[in-house]
Amino acid sequence: MFKKYDIIVVGAGHAGCEAAASAANLGSSVLLITMNMATIAQMSCNPAMGGVAKGQIVREIDAMGGYSGIVSDKSTIQFRMLNKSKGPAMWSPRTQNDRMRFAEEWRLMLEQTPNVDFWQDTVNELLVKGDRVAGVKTSLGISIEADAVVLTNGTFLNGLIHIGEKRFGGGRTAEKSATGLTEQLNELGFTSGRMKTGTPPRVDGRSLDYSLMEEQWGDDNPGKFSFTDVEVPQQQKCCWITYTNLDVHETLKEGFEKSPMFTGRIKGLGPRYCPSIEDKINRFADRDRHQIFVEPEGLHTVEIYVNGFSTSLPEDIQYKALTKIPGFEKVKMFRPGYAIEYDFFPPTQLGLTLETKLIKNLFFAGQINGTTGYEEAASQGFIAGINAHQKINDLHELIMKRSESYIGVLIDDLVTKGTEEPYRMFTSRAEHRLLLRQDNADIRLTPIGHQLGLVNDKRLEKVNRKIENSDTIIKYLKSTSIEPSLINNLLEELGTSALTQNFKLFQLVTRPQVSLNDLRKVSAGLNDLLMQFDIETVEQAEIKAKYESYFEKELEIVGKMKKMEDQEINPNFDYSGMVSLSKEAREKLKKIKPRTLGQASRISGVSPSDISVIMVHLK
Amino acid sequence: MFKKYDIIVVGAGHAGCEAAASAANLGSSVLLITMNMATIAQMSCNPAMGGVAKGQIVREIDAMGGYSGIVSDKSTIQFRMLNKSKGPAMWSPRTQNDRMRFAEEWRLMLEQTPNVDFWQDTVNELLVKGDRVAGVKTSLGISIEADAVVLTNGTFLNGLIHIGEKRFGGGRTAEKSATGLTEQLNELGFTSGRMKTGTPPRVDGRSLDYSLMEEQWGDDNPGKFSFTDVEVPQQQKCCWITYTNLDVHETLKEGFEKSPMFTGRIKGLGPRYCPSIEDKINRFADRDRHQIFVEPEGLHTVEIYVNGFSTSLPEDIQYKALTKIPGFEKVKMFRPGYAIEYDFFPPTQLGLTLETKLIKNLFFAGQINGTTGYEEAASQGFIAGINAHQKINDLHELIMKRSESYIGVLIDDLVTKGTEEPYRMFTSRAEHRLLLRQDNADIRLTPIGHQLGLVNDKRLEKVNRKIENSDTIIKYLKSTSIEPSLINNLLEELGTSALTQNFKLFQLVTRPQVSLNDLRKVSAGLNDLLMQFDIETVEQAEIKAKYESYFEKELEIVGKMKKMEDQEINPNFDYSGMVSLSKEAREKLKKIKPRTLGQASRISGVSPSDISVIMVHLK
Ligand SMILES: Cc1cc2nc3c(=O)[nH]c(=O)nc-3n(C[C@H](O)[C@H](O)[C@H](O)COP(=O)(O)OP(=O)(O)OC[C@H]3O[C@@H](n4cnc5c(N)ncnc54)[C@H](O)[C@@H]3O)c2cc1C
Ligand SMILES: Cc1cc2nc3c(=O)[nH]c(=O)nc-3n(C[C@H](O)[C@H](O)[C@H](O)COP(=O)(O)OP(=O)(O)OC[C@H]3O[C@@H](n4cnc5c(N)ncnc54)[C@H](O)[C@@H]3O)c2cc1C
Repeated sequence: MFKKYDIIVVGAGHAGCEAAASAANLGSSVLLITMNMATIAQMSCNPAMGGVAKGQIVREIDAMGGYSGIVSDKSTIQFRMLNKSKGPAMWSPRTQNDRMRFAEEWRLMLEQTPNVDFWQDTVNELLVKGDRVAGVKTSLGISIEADAVVLTNGTFLNGLIHIGEKRFGGGRTAEKSATGLTEQLNELGFTSGRMKTGTPPRVDGRSLDYSLMEEQWGDDNPGKFSFTDVEVPQQQKCCWITYTNLDVHETLKEGFEKSPMFTGRIKGLGPRYCPSIEDKINRFADRDRHQIFVEPEGLHTVEIYVNGFSTSLPEDIQYKALTKIPGFEKVKMFRPGYAIEYDFFPPTQLGLTLETKLIKNLFFAGQINGTTGYEEAASQGFIAGINAHQKINDLHELIMKRSESYIGVLIDDLVTKGTEEPYRMFTSRAEHRLLLRQDNADIRLTPIGHQLGLVNDKRLEKVNRKIENSDTIIKYLKSTSIEPSLINNLLEELGTSALTQNFKLFQLVTRPQVSLNDLRKVSAGLNDLLMQFDIETVEQAEIKAKYESYFEKELEIVGKMKKMEDQEINPNFDYSGMVSLSKEAREKLKKIKPRTLGQASRISGVSPSDISVIMVHLK
Repeated sequence: MFKKYDIIVVGAGHAGCEAAASAANLGSSVLLITMNMATIAQMSCNPAMGGVAKGQIVREIDAMGGYSGIVSDKSTIQFRMLNKSKGPAMWSPRTQNDRMRFAEEWRLMLEQTPNVDFWQDTVNELLVKGDRVAGVKTSLGISIEADAVVLTNGTFLNGLIHIGEKRFGGGRTAEKSATGLTEQLNELGFTSGRMKTGTPPRVDGRSLDYSLMEEQWGDDNPGKFSFTDVEVPQQQKCCWITYTNLDVHETLKEGFEKSPMFTGRIKGLGPRYCPSIEDKINRFADRDRHQIFVEPEGLHTVEIYVNGFSTSLPEDIQYKALTKIPGFEKVKMFRPGYAIEYDFFPPTQLGLTLETKLIKNLFFAGQINGTTGYEEAASQGFIAGINAHQKINDLHELIMKRSESYIGVLIDDLVTKGTEEPYRMFTSRAEHRLLLRQDNADIRLTPIGHQLGLVNDKRLEKVNRKIENSDTIIKYLKSTSIEPSLINNLLEELGTSALTQNFKLFQLVTRPQVSLNDLRKVSAGLNDLLMQFDIETVEQAEIKAKYESYFEKELEIVGKMKKMEDQEINPNFDYSGMVSLSKEAREKLKKIKPRTLGQASRISGVSPSDISVIMVHLK
């Protein structure tokens, strides 16, 4: 009934969708098998993409030819560039999305991708031949062959939903869980664990009193994720901010004795950085309020996502506590919040390509690897799809570097360090974050996408033009001076010191108060030049000009580390005989099989002196 | 956590959505509880509304202020008026719909309906106080009180899905079934039964060769369902027609030994008039081909609904057989067809208001009553919602007459005759179908909707104007003559005999070849008059003019029958002592408790002589 496919992707969440797209766009025939074709690319939790560090990831996926950025843009109902007041490494695009539109756009984009076929079914077994995956078997009893398989089961493997003392099987509310795969993988030698995550209640927007909340509008000149010229809907919606208070907290505490988390019924570890409201009250007992973002679920629907109020307390407690939040006095709930426990596979069982070490041509991506978040999932799926294609075609592996992308940081962290709790990306995880900005994701990564064949020439040319043109601007700034008389009024206005002699424009831009848009008002030459370029190019030039010295220093560090970082280690390197290594290091190194000295150095338990020992052996 | 509601509607399928809307629009506070808010108004099977007899029902719902017509119009991707070549009683509007848009529009309309609240949960118990329903209890253990409850569980009660020899619980593919309610209702004394229905596989439109099929476009001047001025999408999509052949049939037969229907694993009775492909082959063994309609699932998606190929044979047989259909040689399947068995409650347990006889204020509507089809479900929901509201407010019951609506025929048939197999509406079921046309649904029913308070004055005025204006046209036609010289050329062109003397326009219109649009070309006076009115009014006048004599005869019959039809019987009338009644008639009358002599006369087993006996007692 089915031909043999190049690649089967199991699950059509954010990871599975990107995996199917990237593998298919590289030329592999892909079968995307998912439990319900009506839930392709469902956002399980908040209807939003991006945010701090996550926005950078979406830009990176887009720069290399993935779809998440385009889909997010097409379904945007509010765009904000977070952290605009901080340095550009912190700027993070975030969209509020129409949940239905997001899923629909994903599905339509996949349908328009020629090599992607679909099959609605549940995979409950892998076909394995020797040490190599050979396909899957479904709940209908169908065996389907493939050269490679990407598992992206999300929160569905033995998913168990908790609300207060009630619990029932499910991969998401009102959806079935998936069984069989964990058990088989355990038999094959994989270790699995349990994690948990949670979601807040959804409420009826018609029952809220917005006059008691703070408005939060999107940017005046909304940007977008994608470097392509996708059209973004014009209509932006407002969000609101309100706060919990001690009364809310006291009410929530009434439910603590029935909390599945506090009573120990939930065994899995939850995301420390995305805690439930009961967690927050518990851990930050001194805080007398927590912020609540009141976010619409779509352009037209009245359903509201109560961001910041994730909870698995009994639904009546959820309700009672909500009514004590300003603006929520008359709240009507649509669906209660809940927690979900699910199986994951500690990602140290993977290589940097996301292929499993135990079974060849089997890749894992997304929540199944112990991460949390759509963006983290999508980026892994994207990379797994690429590497599955590369692997079965004997092409080079794609290993993203920590110094070139957040995606590289993510995968290296996972594979090298593993994770005890749901792993979420933060800017602080990226040591070279000054270089890994949202504004230059295209400059960093589009050449890689182009080389793979995921990005067309036109897009690469556009990036090259952006580089050239921003350099032209910098050159102009460096070579052009301005007279005090022409600019001192402006400088005074901007609250920065006046000039006493001619000054290079470049030096002026490095002042925090002064922007290119200010300078073009007083320099006709600069204005003429800038008129020729698009906003992104001008912005790029400005960022480069303002932070050039920092960037150069960072690049120097990267260069220095590169030698060690890149020094390759044969994955089959034999650590057993190396008695000078600590016992812990030896075990970890044998398990992780680092590919470079850099990777080895990040394994927890491997000390600098262990690294020296290896270095000696590598000579 | 919940206030006491006026009315709780269980299930948000077509019946539940209309019930919630009508009750809420009448002023009741309504809680719509459904298992998954993401599947509100899902079309379980074909993405289409209306068709023969069903199109009339949609128009009737719309005429009274229901939502199905508007939602269908808003999500239309193709409109056709079926049977245009036959008499106007057969004209039936049908739309092909965008499945996602349909569900979304329903949800948005309900969200815009002030008195409708939502709660995502599964009801597994009714709260009953004495002989009266008092609310529901959900799977979360929540009790919610209400004065009335409308059950619209569709195919979900103990739903069991079959594909070949495989079977699994579910209310629809990839959705859970609902348990508990049937069992409780049985304990309360209700009889339940089992029915089955089926759906065809969905396939990838990209894998079909449309050049081997016949195109089927919508109407050139597409109409719509709703009498309101809802905006209909402009873009219409093409459908295609192809045929099975003996090779297809032989292939399907290979699966017969694994067919859940033929092996007796399916106990429920299926819809005889909407048979599976294996049924068709079996029952019409002499037919060497069956028609297949190839219908898009939406405006943008490539998913295709294979209308006419409903099946529960093993999925590999489905696939193999499909590949032998012209245009399907390279077909790729998205999801297999399947059959589903579910519980229903023989509708003779209901009164004509759709309230159950056993438990007060409990109403049943939709597939739970043994019907099949969205339109049948929607209309029952609409009526149940109204009657639930009327009941709890001590207002008059709404009992639709057989002589005024298909909805009346439907409910009277169900309640009076019951049904052994899934009940579907046909024009042949309506003895007064000449009067129950799609074109006059507003004239027939908008006054009822208006009197209830579901239709505003403006809409009623519009209907009154339509009546007046079409009468004006008729009067003009009857009073205006035309000279042979002015019209004979035209008549010759139209292939009808020339005039030898002046002739009334009215007489000309009664000729089948001649339309008002023809006549206006030769009569400036008529043209001037028609210019003042909209298309619907002109069409109404034309239909009236052409068929006036038939309609009058029909009205006469209705009038004659009315006396008997309307003669009321006290529902508590004691039949036990009436020895002249046949034993069967006595039992049936005691069970059905007919409200009128007309209803009594339609009970199977009640003979004309039984009716005479009752008439004597009524005097
Ligand atoms: C209740 C809840 C709350 C969450 N809260 C947060 C949060 O607060 N913050 C945050 O960042 N992230 C949160 N997440 C996580 C976020 O939803 C995930 O990180 C993201 O969706 C993971 O993407 P994925 O592609 O790995 O898996 P998913 O999005 O879970 O998709 C998995 C897909 O695989 C399919 N599937 C699974 N098993 C099978 C099988 N055997 N056969 C066929 N198909 C299968 C499923 O149907 C689904 O389509 C939450 C998730 C849930 C469920
Ligand atoms: C596989 C299949 C094939 C079909 N084929 C045809 C066909 O060929 N021709 C045709 O005319 N009709 C067909 N139908 C029937 C058509 O889908 C139904 O007639 C119509 O959908 C019935 O509408 P409804 O509102 O009664 O129920 P449904 O549309 O079934 O809706 C029921 C709703 O109730 C909810 N629900 C159920 N139980 C509970 C509970 N306990 N608590 C809370 N919520 C609950 C469900 O989630 C759902 O939203 C088919 C149906 C199915 C499933």
